[in-house]
Order: sequence, then structure tokens, then C-alpha cells
Amino acid sequence: MGSQSDLNVMQQAADVLSELKVPFEITVVSAHRTPERMFEYAQNAANRGIKVIIAGAGGAAHLPGMCASLTALPVIGVPIKSRNSIDGWDSVLSILQMPGGVPVATVALDGAQNAGILAAQIMAVADESLYQRLLAFKENLKTKVLNSISEVESRSRK
Amino acid sequence: MGSQSDLNVMQQAADVLSELKVPFEITVVSAHRTPERMFEYAQNAANRGIKVIIAGAGGAAHLPGMCASLTALPVIGVPIKSRNSIDGWDSVLSILQMPGGVPVATVALDGAQNAGILAAQIMAVADESLYQRLLAFKENLKTKVLNSISEVESRSRK
Amino acid sequence: MGSQSDLNVMQQAADVLSELKVPFEITVVSAHRTPERMFEYAQNAANRGIKVIIAGAGGAAHLPGMCASLTALPVIGVPIKSRNSIDGWDSVLSILQMPGGVPVATVALDGAQNAGILAAQIMAVADESLYQRLLAFKENLKTKVLNSISEVESRSRK
Amino acid sequence: MGSQSDLNVMQQAADVLSELKVPFEITVVSAHRTPERMFEYAQNAANRGIKVIIAGAGGAAHLPGMCASLTALPVIGVPIKSRNSIDGWDSVLSILQMPGGVPVATVALDGAQNAGILAAQIMAVADESLYQRLLAFKENLKTKVLNSISEVESRSRK
Amino acid sequence: MGSQSDLNVMQQAADVLSELKVPFEITVVSAHRTPERMFEYAQNAANRGIKVIIAGAGGAAHLPGMCASLTALPVIGVPIKSRNSIDGWDSVLSILQMPGGVPVATVALDGAQNAGILAAQIMAVADESLYQRLLAFKENLKTKVLNSISEVESRSRK
Amino acid sequence: MGSQSDLNVMQQAADVLSELKVPFEITVVSAHRTPERMFEYAQNAANRGIKVIIAGAGGAAHLPGMCASLTALPVIGVPIKSRNSIDGWDSVLSILQMPGGVPVATVALDGAQNAGILAAQIMAVADESLYQRLLAFKENLKTKVLNSISEVESRSRK
Amino acid sequence: MGSQSDLNVMQQAADVLSELKVPFEITVVSAHRTPERMFEYAQNAANRGIKVIIAGAGGAAHLPGMCASLTALPVIGVPIKSRNSIDGWDSVLSILQMPGGVPVATVALDGAQNAGILAAQIMAVADESLYQRLLAFKENLKTKVLNSISEVESRSRK
Amino acid sequence: MGSQSDLNVMQQAADVLSELKVPFEITVVSAHRTPERMFEYAQNAANRGIKVIIAGAGGAAHLPGMCASLTALPVIGVPIKSRNSIDGWDSVLSILQMPGGVPVATVALDGAQNAGILAAQIMAVADESLYQRLLAFKENLKTKVLNSISEVESRSRK
Repeated sequence: MGSQSDLNVMQQAADVLSELKVPFEITVVSAHRTPERMFEYAQNAANRGIKVIIAGAGGAAHLPGMCASLTALPVIGVPIKSRNSIDGWDSVLSILQMPGGVPVATVALDGAQNAGILAAQIMAVADESLYQRLLAFKENLKTKVLNSISEVESRSRK
Repeated sequence: MGSQSDLNVMQQAADVLSELKVPFEITVVSAHRTPERMFEYAQNAANRGIKVIIAGAGGAAHLPGMCASLTALPVIGVPIKSRNSIDGWDSVLSILQMPGGVPVATVALDGAQNAGILAAQIMAVADESLYQRLLAFKENLKTKVLNSISEVESRSRK
Repeated sequence: MGSQSDLNVMQQAADVLSELKVPFEITVVSAHRTPERMFEYAQNAANRGIKVIIAGAGGAAHLPGMCASLTALPVIGVPIKSRNSIDGWDSVLSILQMPGGVPVATVALDGAQNAGILAAQIMAVADESLYQRLLAFKENLKTKVLNSISEVESRSRK
Repeated sequence: MGSQSDLNVMQQAADVLSELKVPFEITVVSAHRTPERMFEYAQNAANRGIKVIIAGAGGAAHLPGMCASLTALPVIGVPIKSRNSIDGWDSVLSILQMPGGVPVATVALDGAQNAGILAAQIMAVADESLYQRLLAFKENLKTKVLNSISEVESRSRK
Repeated sequence: MGSQSDLNVMQQAADVLSELKVPFEITVVSAHRTPERMFEYAQNAANRGIKVIIAGAGGAAHLPGMCASLTALPVIGVPIKSRNSIDGWDSVLSILQMPGGVPVATVALDGAQNAGILAAQIMAVADESLYQRLLAFKENLKTKVLNSISEVESRSRK
Repeated sequence: MGSQSDLNVMQQAADVLSELKVPFEITVVSAHRTPERMFEYAQNAANRGIKVIIAGAGGAAHLPGMCASLTALPVIGVPIKSRNSIDGWDSVLSILQMPGGVPVATVALDGAQNAGILAAQIMAVADESLYQRLLAFKENLKTKVLNSISEVESRSRK
Repeated sequence: MGSQSDLNVMQQAADVLSELKVPFEITVVSAHRTPERMFEYAQNAANRGIKVIIAGAGGAAHLPGMCASLTALPVIGVPIKSRNSIDGWDSVLSILQMPGGVPVATVALDGAQNAGILAAQIMAVADESLYQRLLAFKENLKTKVLNSISEVESRSRK
Repeated sequence: MGSQSDLNVMQQAADVLSELKVPFEITVVSAHRTPERMFEYAQNAANRGIKVIIAGAGGAAHLPGMCASLTALPVIGVPIKSRNSIDGWDSVLSILQMPGGVPVATVALDGAQNAGILAAQIMAVADESLYQRLLAFKENLKTKVLNSISEVESRSRK
């Protein structure tokens, strides 16, 4: 993540990765305040055995795109609606609109949970057991909705 | 892709996958006009050995998100600036802003080339040879820029 | 509705339908979490005697459009300004900008009351008694405004 | 429609209604230039046997909303991207964001074809034969997509 | 104003007109709920001796534009950021983007004070004494700013 | 107007003022390139007998608002969609969103004709003959619409 | 700054200039309420020894652009999200979209701290000692991020 | 500039710097395709005697912000409306909305001429002769406007 203040959002990626039993590390790498650290981090990630990078940042969010420029690993970008953001549009467009050749897999504004799931889906391309856990995770989402039906139906008749 | 008219854009994904020697299939699946086909396609994709789905659509683009709801495979969404689109905002937001639990890896508006590269990056998580081809692809991008420098420097002094 | 959290908004549709004495059912059908349930619900609605579907959802709202793809009944879409929404634009555009052939009758952001009235207007095409109740409902709106005039005129002279 | 210049778009509603064998009339009623005509038209529509009103207009489009204020019939609004429009946003928001009590069933920007289909869906609530024609219309949309598949699959291998 | 809930904003127009000693009346006229009253009000305003109409409304705000269609008096429109508004854009565009031939003099979002001043400026075209009061009003604005300088200069050195 | 390139749009104001027999002058005053000229123009306008100022400009359009700060006359602002404009939003917001105390009567993007009509409406507050010409102008708009009806009705049946 | 209410934001420019030991003055100059003062201030700034002007304003923010029209000094504009602003877009576009020939160096919405740093960077073009302080300032930003890493890493494992 | 395709716009910066007799170099540095080159370029610029960096880029434009993170020199950012851009909003927001501590002096969309002038204004802080050339440049802008007046006044009376 680009700043300590992003932890609130990015923790959701950590939580879902834990739930899916995908090992991960979490740290702060600021594209604008620690560019050398970002360079080193992104360039060495593959050699260190990292398989997917999730990068979250707000405002003129350059961290996801710069990571993508520095590695051939898949990079997932999480736009964050930070303070002083223009309703999150700045972060969304700064991450999404990458030029040809350098993709960032962008998820919804503050969508860190989905970033974690997407990372797991990517890892699952070569991990059948993880793929089964993802199927179970989806089944669980479904169950929660189905369980809410009777409550909604009764509450609406209050 | 959601419609034959999207081929112009989506062909770029096919081209880069060919260049990177990643096998793929390309077809038309309309979320709104052939919903049963979409259901069947997305639900069976994993069993058929598909590893990644790239879904491109314009306007109120539901194909990427619906595919993501029907499979645990990674789904890459390509917003397309179709005719009658409101500057592409409709397609971008319809694909990007997925709810928690169901990610779509969104790329830039009309960014089908990047969707192809991202799919290759995902496949490369378990394919060292493809990863090497991606490194070479990145090197090639770099070379093209470096080669343009002298031309730009001289033209600007015209 | 797409999620239990939409009940707060969608209850207004239920309330106005009750007021207009139009029978209805209310339930949760998530396009993204329970796609099979959505398919079944939308495909069977006409056979079960449903005449109009009101579908409300937030973010990348695919429920209204997918229902419209699966039935020939009129479908009314209610954009909902959910948490993490980009000011509601995502929901509005995901519902409104349907491709040719598959209309969704979209109402205002969080406009569930109007969705209920519109459903009643549609039913009233073949129900003269309901049409009379709608005329009375409109007359009542008018009366409320007329009753507020004297209060406004006096308060503004405070 | 609000102006002769809207005919280009609105003709698509006429065409699909003809195809679906739904009788209709088409005329020009300007909210801003012929307000008396609009009043008379909307207030008398029900008595003349009109069942659904389709109103298309561009810019600060008041015709759909004003019709809805003057009748209890369902009113379908078609935002039109006219000259001097701000990318169509003005027309979309002027039609969509109606206050509580006065719904307009809004379709996509320049979505007159969908307005025609929606009108037919509304009429079909009490017309089983029309409902069957709508099912056939949907089937036809599906067939066109299915027919395009082989062409797309072969062209993409050019 | 279009609704009692607009009084909070529109009161500022009343206040500045009082301050400038311009006689006025204030009332509720809803384009969508009391269209007949709006017609009558706007059509009779000139005959009743009204010189300028200030119309404030939120959402799909049709009151200012419809008044302008029904009278040759100058009409000032006040966009209001109402509940369920999409950040006020709906009201701004519904009022501002009038078609050729039917102007509405639009002021800033929630800018009722400016609407009052503009009305006074219009009246002052034929009222030298009012024009002098407007000059004094402007002088007063200037004085307030000048008086704030020393406070700002000292506070910033806290 | 702020630049010679605005003449294309602003000529429409001149044309309608000519048609309505309202005397006017037209010139170029650039807020950003000739600020002293703007100051002098706006400060002296009232003394020279000017009754209404119409100011058109594109991009970060400061001319209307600065004129309004320098005179107590009514100022009408015309946002112009100039080259390099961001779809006209820059000009619209720069003119419309004036602070309390300093109104600009803003018309639609490129709406110079309406600016001319509005100026005439303002002058007509004290000119009964001009008011009658405005009523005739409105009648003429109505007639044009009514004359188009038969053509539209027949063309749509082509 | 354009108004006393902007002090809250603009104080951050003062603070960082103090920290960087760059002498400055801070005052209120309203483009719309005290235009003569603005003229005098901007025209005399260079003669008084001012080297850079930082101008912050909200809404239809004309202060930065008008200063830039009246001086050949570099002018830095700070868009401010004021009350009644349309999410800050009005201020951003009014300051950023200056016409050719009259630049304003625009910083982020409410980005007064960055305006102060930019002013220091400009002064440092001819002040090696200040340049060294800026390098130290950047180093300090980096240190703060590096110091937050261990906290983030441990908190995320809560 | 970030890409050879930006030369069309960025040439205007070169032209005005030539006109103002400010020495400059022009080259291509892609943040996303040649990140190492960007690092080296930005980090060494000050040592090479560069005083100001002008960085232009389109889409998710990271070049200006990354340069600003790597140097304490003033960095001017030029948003460019590139192909596939979402109306330029992506580039504007990616450049403008920098976080606290790392300013980019942003100019208008495609505003390369203004970037050149701003760079000259910055250099002129310590170069009286250049300051005089800037005053002459401003005088020249004024003269062009004044010269256009008679043409506009006569053409408008065509």
C-alpha cells in the first residue's frame, strides 16, 4: 500500500487471503515518497518468489502502474478514496487507464477484498486445492444471500 | 466478447496472445441476448480446461461481471466505448464496480491488448517459459521507446 | 433486490404498492452471488403470474439488466447509492445504458417509490380501478403541495 | 418528440412498434416552445385511448417529466444526445432524476428502440398475443448473435 | 420554489431582496405535482405585475424551464442540491441546458442569494435608486473582505 | 467575448438582438490577455449607458465573473466549448459557480442566442414595446414547431 | 487567498514555507469582491520584490488566473473545495484550464502544502541553500514512510 | 514526454521556449516502458544543470508525478488527451492530484505552450533579462487581442 492511511482498506485483502489460506506479506511502499524502495520492491518481487502484487493507493495513484512497469508479474490495483480525493475518480482513473503493454488488473474503489480474491484466483490457476477453497468461498457467499431471504421477506411486511 | 461489433477492439487481445504463444479461443457470448449461452459458457469453462476468461463489452456491460459470478476462474473485463456509450463511462463503471466477493480484473477503456497481456501474466504464474516471453515482450516495448528518442529529438528541432 | 442492504431503499416500492393495493412479493436475488437463483427467478416469473419485475441494485448493478435479458416482462430498474459506490454513477449507468433489444425502465437514484408507482401504472393499463387509484394518488400529491403553500409563505416572512 | 431534429433517433421506436404490430402515433410536442400543446396532449392522452406515452428530448429535456406530471399513464423517456448537449449528461439527468411520485421510465441515451420495446412489453401485460411476439423478438435477437459466432471466430484468425 | 424542502435555500433570495428593498412574493409551485398551478402562475405573472421570476428546484428540475416557456418575463433558475440528487449535477444541467429560444438565467448550485441580487439588478435597469442600493451592497461586500484582512494576517502567524 | 474565436458562437446573440431591435455593441475583451481593458470596459459600462453585459468565453472562463465583480449591471455569461476544453465542463463551471454576492446569469453551453433573448427580456422590464416583440418571438417559435408536425408525422411513416 | 474561509486550507502553505525558511506574506484578496485590490496587488507584486504568488480560491475560482493575467511572475493556484462547490470540480477546472499564454501552476484540490513546496522549489532555482533544505524535506518524507512500515506490518497481523 | 505520439502537443512547449530564448532539451522518457531511464533521468537532472522539468503524458499519466518524486526541481505536468483517453480526465487527474509533499505544477489539458511559459517564468526568478522578455511576450498577447477588435466588430455587422 502507498501509505499507512490505506491500511484500513487494504486490511480486507489480507483478511480474505488469510481466510483462503494464501500466504502473503503486507507492507508500505510509497511511489512518491520512497521511489527507490518501490523500484527495488517491484524489481525483486519475482526473484523473492512473489507471484502476484496487490497495490493500493489513493489520489494520483501511481504505485500500481509503476509496479506493473517494473515487473512481469500480474499486478492488481486497488483505487482508494483517500482524503482530498475528488470522489475517488482520481484514484480510479490513475490506476485503470494504463497504456498498452503495461496492464494493471483494477478492482472497484476501496475493493481490497476483491483484490485478495482475485490474487487467490490467479494463484489457483496452478493450485487445485486453492481452487476448491475458492469454490467453497463462492458457495458461502451464496448461502449468506439465501439465508437473508426470509429475514428480508418478513421485515418488508413489518 | 458481447457483440460482433466488439471484434475490432477485442482482436488486439487475440493478437498479443498469439504473439506470446498463449493458446486461446475467441467467440461471441451476449449477456443480454444469449443469457443461457453465457451461463453455460462461464459455468463450463473450468471443466473445459479454460484458465482465464477475457470478457469485453460496451454500454451497461454485464458480461464480465456475470462470468465472474458463474466461475471461480479469474475474469478480465475490457470496457469498450461502443456507439451510444456515454463516453465509455457506462462500460467502465459497469465492469469495474463489482461488489465484494466477485472480482473482475478491469483494464483500460478499449484496453484489449492489456487484457491479453494480463491473461498471459496470470498463466505465467505456473509457466516459466511464458514468463520469459513476457520479460522479452517488456524488453521489446522498452526498445521501441529508446529507438524513438533520436527521431523525436531531431524532429523537435525541425 | 440484490442485497439485504438494499431493503432500506426498496421498502419504499413495497409501501407505495401496498398503498395502491397492488399485490406484490419482495425477495433477495443477487445477480453476482446467486446467479442460478436469478436465472430461475427471472425465467419463471411470467409463468408464476408475475406481471412486472422491479429490480434494485447498487454499484455495478447487473440484476435489472440480467432480469430483462431473461424475461419478456417489463423490468423496472432502481439504481441504489450503496456503500463504496462512486456517488451512484456506477449504479445509474449500469442499469440505464442497456443495449438495443433489452430495455430496463430506469428510475431515479434510490427512486424505489417511483418504481412502485410505475409498476402500478403498467398494471393499470388493464385495470381501470387501479388507474382510478393512481389518479387519486396524484391528486393527493397535489393536495400536499397546496397545503404547504401557506406555511411556506408565512415562514419566509419570519 | 420535442423537436423535428429528434426524428432521426425516435424513428427507431416507430420501427420496432411497427415490427411488433403495436399501433402508435408519432408527433412533435415541445415542452418549451408549445407548452399549451403539451398540456393538452398529455392531459387528453388517456381519454383518447392512448395507453403508453414515449417522450424523447435532448438537453434540458422536460417533455418526459412534464408528460408524467400531467397523466397517470406510464411515460417512457428517451434521452437524446442533441447538438450543444454536454455529452448527453444533461438529457439523461433531466429525464431520469424525477422526484418521488412522478416516475418516468427512462431508457438509454438515444435508446428509442428500447423505448418502443418497453412500450410493447407494457401493452403485453394485457395482450397475450403481443407477449408471444415479444418472445419471438427476443428469440430473433438470440439467433442473430448465434449466427455471428462463426463469422467472428473465423475473422479473428485472419 | 418547487417544494417546501427548498425553503431553506430559497429563503436567502428573500432575505437579500428584503435587504435591497425589492418587493417580492414567495410561494410553492411544483412543476411535477401541481402542473396546472404552474401553468396558471407563469402565464399570469406578467399580468399581475410580476417583473422577474426566480424558480428554484432540485433533481430533474423542470420548474425554471417550464416557467420560461410560459412567460416572456426573465426567469432566474436556482439549482438545489436536494436529497437523492446526484451531487447536484441533475439540477444544474436540468436548469442550465435550455434549448434555443427559451433562456433561463441560471445561478450557482444553491445560489439563491445571487438569484435575489440578479433579480434586483434586472429591476434596477429601470430604477436608479435600486441601482444605487446595489452599488452600496457591492461596497459592503468589499468592506467585509477588507475588514477580514488583518484578522487573517494575524491568525496565520499564530 | 473573450477571443476572436468565440465570434462564431457569439454572433447568435447579435443576430437575435438585431431581430428584436435591441441596440447593442460587440467587441473583444480578454480577461486574461487584456485585463486592463476588461477593467475599464466593465467599470465604465454603466456610465456609457450600457444596460446589460453579455460575456462569452471558453475554458477557465473568467470574463463573465470578472465583469460581474466590476459592475452592478446584470451580466449574462455564455459558456463556450472551445478547443482544448474538457467537453465544455470547464467553461460551464467557471461561469456558473460564482460566489455569493456576485451573480452571473448563465445560459447553456454555446447558448449565445438565449443570452441575447435574456438580455432583451431584461431590457423589456421597462420597455413594453420590446416585451410585445418578445411575445411575438415566442409565438413564432411555437409556429415553427406546429408547422413541423405534419412533416414529421408523414416522414415517420415513410 | 480569496476569502477568510480559505485560511483553513491555505495555512498549510504558510506552515511549510515557514518550515523551509522561505519568507512570505499572507493576505485576503477577493477577485470578485475586491477586484481593484486584486489588480493593484498582482500588478505591484513584482515591484515589491515578490517572486512567486500562491492564489487559493473555491467555486468559480478566478483569483489565480486573474493574478496570472496581471503579472509575469509564476502563479500557483490552489483549488479549494468550498461550501456549495460541486465536489471541487468547479474550482479545479476554473484554475487549471487557463488559455494559451497565461499559465497557472495548479496543484491538487486543497493542496496548499504542495503549493508551498512548489513555491520553495521555484525560489530554489537560484538559492542553493533552499534547494538543500528541500532535499532534506524530501528525505524526511521518506523517513516517515519507512518508520511506518513496521507498524503497518504488525497491525495487519493483529 | 512519455511517448513519441505526445510530440504533437509537446512541440508547443519547445516553440515558446525557443521564442523566449530559454535553452532546453526534449526527449522521450516513458514511466511505464522505460522506468529505469526515467529514474536515471529524473535523479540526474539537477546534477546535469537542468533547472525545471516539463513532463507531458496521457491516460494514467505517471511521468510527471514520478519525476517529482525523484527530484527536488520544480516539475511541470502537461495532461495530454491521448487516444483511448476518457476525454482527458484520466490524464488531468493522474497528474494534478499528487499527495502532500510531492507537488506537480499542472497546466491545462494539452497546455504545453503554457508549460513552456511557466518554465520560463520560473527561470526568470533569477534572470531579469528573461523576465523582461516575458513582459514583452505578455504585451504581444495583448496587442494581438487589440488588433482583432476592429475585425470582430466589423464582421459581426456583416
